[in-house]
Amino acid sequence: MNTEQNPAASAPEQATATHAETYTIGVDFGTLSGRAVVVRVSDGAELGSAVLDYPHAVMDRELASTGAALPPDWALQVPADYVAVMQSAVPRAVEAAGIDPAAVIGIGTDFTACTMVPVIADGTPLNELPEYADRPHAYVKLWKHHSAQPQADRINELAAERGESWLPRYGGLISSEWEFAKGLQLLEEDPELYERMDHWVEAADWIIWQLTGTYVRNACTAGYKGIYQDGAYPSHEFLAALNPAFERFADDKVAHEIGELGAAAGTLSAEAAGWTGLREGIAVAVGNVDAHVAAPAAQAVSPGQMVAIMGTSTCHVMNGDVLREVPGMCGVVDGGIIAGLYGYEAGQSGVGDIFAWYVANQVPARYTEEAAARGVSIHEHLTSLIQDQPVGAHGLVALDWHSGNRSVLVDHELSGTVLGLTLTTRTEEVYRALFEATAFGTRKIVETFNASGVPVTEFIVAGGLQRNPFLMQTYSDILRLPISITASDQGPALGSAIHAAVAAGAYPDVPAASAAMGKVNRAVYTPNEAAADAYDLLYAEYATLHDYFGRGANDVMKRLKRIRRAALGGGVDSLPTDTETTALEGATA
Amino acid sequence: MNTEQNPAASAPEQATATHAETYTIGVDFGTLSGRAVVVRVSDGAELGSAVLDYPHAVMDRELASTGAALPPDWALQVPADYVAVMQSAVPRAVEAAGIDPAAVIGIGTDFTACTMVPVIADGTPLNELPEYADRPHAYVKLWKHHSAQPQADRINELAAERGESWLPRYGGLISSEWEFAKGLQLLEEDPELYERMDHWVEAADWIIWQLTGTYVRNACTAGYKGIYQDGAYPSHEFLAALNPAFERFADDKVAHEIGELGAAAGTLSAEAAGWTGLREGIAVAVGNVDAHVAAPAAQAVSPGQMVAIMGTSTCHVMNGDVLREVPGMCGVVDGGIIAGLYGYEAGQSGVGDIFAWYVANQVPARYTEEAAARGVSIHEHLTSLIQDQPVGAHGLVALDWHSGNRSVLVDHELSGTVLGLTLTTRTEEVYRALFEATAFGTRKIVETFNASGVPVTEFIVAGGLQRNPFLMQTYSDILRLPISITASDQGPALGSAIHAAVAAGAYPDVPAASAAMGKVNRAVYTPNEAAADAYDLLYAEYATLHDYFGRGANDVMKRLKRIRRAALGGGVDSLPTDTETTALEGATA
Repeated sequence: MNTEQNPAASAPEQATATHAETYTIGVDFGTLSGRAVVVRVSDGAELGSAVLDYPHAVMDRELASTGAALPPDWALQVPADYVAVMQSAVPRAVEAAGIDPAAVIGIGTDFTACTMVPVIADGTPLNELPEYADRPHAYVKLWKHHSAQPQADRINELAAERGESWLPRYGGLISSEWEFAKGLQLLEEDPELYERMDHWVEAADWIIWQLTGTYVRNACTAGYKGIYQDGAYPSHEFLAALNPAFERFADDKVAHEIGELGAAAGTLSAEAAGWTGLREGIAVAVGNVDAHVAAPAAQAVSPGQMVAIMGTSTCHVMNGDVLREVPGMCGVVDGGIIAGLYGYEAGQSGVGDIFAWYVANQVPARYTEEAAARGVSIHEHLTSLIQDQPVGAHGLVALDWHSGNRSVLVDHELSGTVLGLTLTTRTEEVYRALFEATAFGTRKIVETFNASGVPVTEFIVAGGLQRNPFLMQTYSDILRLPISITASDQGPALGSAIHAAVAAGAYPDVPAASAAMGKVNRAVYTPNEAAADAYDLLYAEYATLHDYFGRGANDVMKRLKRIRRAALGGGVDSLPTDTETTALEGATA
Repeated sequence: MNTEQNPAASAPEQATATHAETYTIGVDFGTLSGRAVVVRVSDGAELGSAVLDYPHAVMDRELASTGAALPPDWALQVPADYVAVMQSAVPRAVEAAGIDPAAVIGIGTDFTACTMVPVIADGTPLNELPEYADRPHAYVKLWKHHSAQPQADRINELAAERGESWLPRYGGLISSEWEFAKGLQLLEEDPELYERMDHWVEAADWIIWQLTGTYVRNACTAGYKGIYQDGAYPSHEFLAALNPAFERFADDKVAHEIGELGAAAGTLSAEAAGWTGLREGIAVAVGNVDAHVAAPAAQAVSPGQMVAIMGTSTCHVMNGDVLREVPGMCGVVDGGIIAGLYGYEAGQSGVGDIFAWYVANQVPARYTEEAAARGVSIHEHLTSLIQDQPVGAHGLVALDWHSGNRSVLVDHELSGTVLGLTLTTRTEEVYRALFEATAFGTRKIVETFNASGVPVTEFIVAGGLQRNPFLMQTYSDILRLPISITASDQGPALGSAIHAAVAAGAYPDVPAASAAMGKVNRAVYTPNEAAADAYDLLYAEYATLHDYFGRGANDVMKRLKRIRRAALGGGVDSLPTDTETTALEGATA
């Protein structure tokens, strides 16, 4: 068991000195950049890495090709940016590792999800057809593209009405982030493009298609994002009831050969070998999702071990040996994380994103100047100012819904709130309240799993936010759980490299590869009982507000979003006539 | 009628050229500074002014004399700072006006209220006795000193239980800001000082005492802040039931000869003549309150004309010809504004203070740098960035309770809230939501007066915030009322000068002086119907949240303040044992 990073990782000359060593490359496609890591197959040592920021980043205000404004809640990307990561980050990572590229036996990838690419039969994205370059719907719909909420609402209402058997597998709600809601939005807002599209492809699979020349649909996103359950997609009848033109969506645009996680999707093509500098013909693993590959990277492949990948958002993944319906989970998929176990997923749509928003939009000059003078990041500076304050002394409670709520409410029309502000509230106090709010959101998820017969026994954190010790201690106190930390800074990329090693035949299965190559430091943070007691009081307040605003007692957040869209779209006069009534009903509720 | 500033105001040489002209001086004591204005008695022309910032400003974090930390919700001042205003601002104003000081026939003052000075028999404040200089309770308790809420709660519970006849005159609730709550706090937290104190004096009256050598209690604060109704204070029985040692509080510490507004309290003493450079023996008007003197300054002396003095906080004053009970008003006092009419008062404890807090604590460097580059204030800059956005496009609603709620909830345990935050919310959007929240708070007050048989027919704004046209338009749209603007930048000081003119015998009464010397521009802003319609939707949301958080459905704000006090005072372990229960009850409500 490697509980710490292998010392060899910082001494690459040893790697080349060991005659028989082989390597795999894991590539992690995040929201803003792609990262390639070279990993030693024998022990998981990470020998070199490189990052490429996507040239087009996230388009959420305007389309780069035309400068045209995008409506609220859109988030697009450019698929060529993903290929650029292969061309740039992979060869640089190999060079940084100081290894012979010929010793690389496989490559694996993981991606944000659900991130969707509309393509024609040969895999060319619609935005690369010159006639469609100015059409927003021709681009990748990033996971946090949230404007398909009306379509998601219809899917959920109809599925509940018809009693569709797959609905409980998704906590009772299909997200606007997923394949069907986004696909229905595409059909209804740009039917010409929908017609032209031959496949509606997860970016996780599209990049594998580019590497191998073969389209294989991974079992993970097919299940979690594509509503593929017990060997079938939603029925023709269901889809036609949503929209007659949507009847054959699953058959025509979505269905494809499924590949098991850890299997090889194919081998590296000559063209992709040219991009990466790797050998043609090495194994390319079936596509996967960033959160899900982090589980084997953290040696968390057993039931009850919940892995939280904490970055801009948080994904929670956990294996279970029983099939249970957990309200508000993102999904449960047979073999969705590890073949042979039920993979459970939950999530929080905004975490690091919220802290970043706050720092960019609500923190005055004196803080940024002090941080610069101290030579620390603004996040470190704010943390240092507030971490010694007694629990509850800020008098605040916040709701962490700035990017909506994925679990357990599954509602992207919810929004963030800060309550308890006074004229003596300090900037860093609100910052801390946002930390706490995300931890309260996690506690809601953990409590829901516990209450549903899938108990959480260990909480393991991966992702960039693990580097803030005060945040981690806050989570431990609020969850009343020990917090383990992945010993890799690059958990998802390591997980992809583990899958690549299995695809290349170096290990018989993912658990075996995980035991050899995964890394975790156990119980780095443990709950402080006095702090935990105090946080219980604040959590009780959070829970009350969570239910009041999130479960229908006061739908003010949804009405505000409706008013906002109407105001931006031509004035509130364009609101449906029931809106005012609804608002006024709310006022007297 | 002077509806605009007299052109002579900017040509002081005319003043001295007119042989028979006389002058009065109005001095306005605000939260952070005192301002003296020289006014021509014949027409109200303002000829010169000067300001002095209080050397000790507001002590709300620590006591200046010792550096010792103050508990939360304290706000103290130093009485000598008020005398310094007389010594500094008055002679400078006379010099700026270019008049002969011998032509000044009277001086009048107005003050923040309820701001209380504990003194011994000769008027010396306790903090000026060397043995008490280190005792927080020896200092002035500024109006926004809010830590007497537990005492206010007991006063209100007992008064309601006993059915005290004076309670409905104050909207059913006595504020923690007022004389009795602050006095009871003094007794219970520092009984030695309470014992040593001979008079518990409004700062409004203390400064007059310093000028004349005579203590006269003004009818305005006696009624509004001192619970003096129908010729009596609360009974011995009532006071003894609060605390046996409090039985004779009214008789021993508070009761004193009452002076009518506009009367002379006495004449300027030789010592005060030395401070100010004015003639000994000129008339000194009975003390008054900043908000209340603004009414005659704005020619608003008739029933239905509501004057809002908008600065750090807002006070609303209005005369009525009938006595009505308005829920949550601060008070109704016979002759409280103008002798012979019922003076109604309401208020919002935080307005400009909230905007200032936001700018100081939540606005990043790029905004302050842009404002500096443009050569405008940060408030002007934020306003310019947001004023053209359609109503509702920010998707936000806020509660303006950062400093508690004076009217109509009368609860300083409430706190501020911002709801609707997303990852695309901009700094200036929250700023605007705070503007709107204060206007919604005003609308609650206006609607409550309308519903209580004291209709508001005109809304006249005085005070510094009248200088923001976008804020004024927002108020007009949200109130659906024309907004008139006092034509004086120094409304309270002008009002004090009007009272001085009456005290000196230049006019028979305040309405006559107001007609000659007051100034207003009528209906400068009128409602935009489309904006008003859109704001109705947001106001409906505000009203729902107002009642949910303000009327007992969810007392989260009060619990957060209790948790905060416990955390700062030694940990939540010190909380009363019912707190956790209460919080958890809230969670399941």
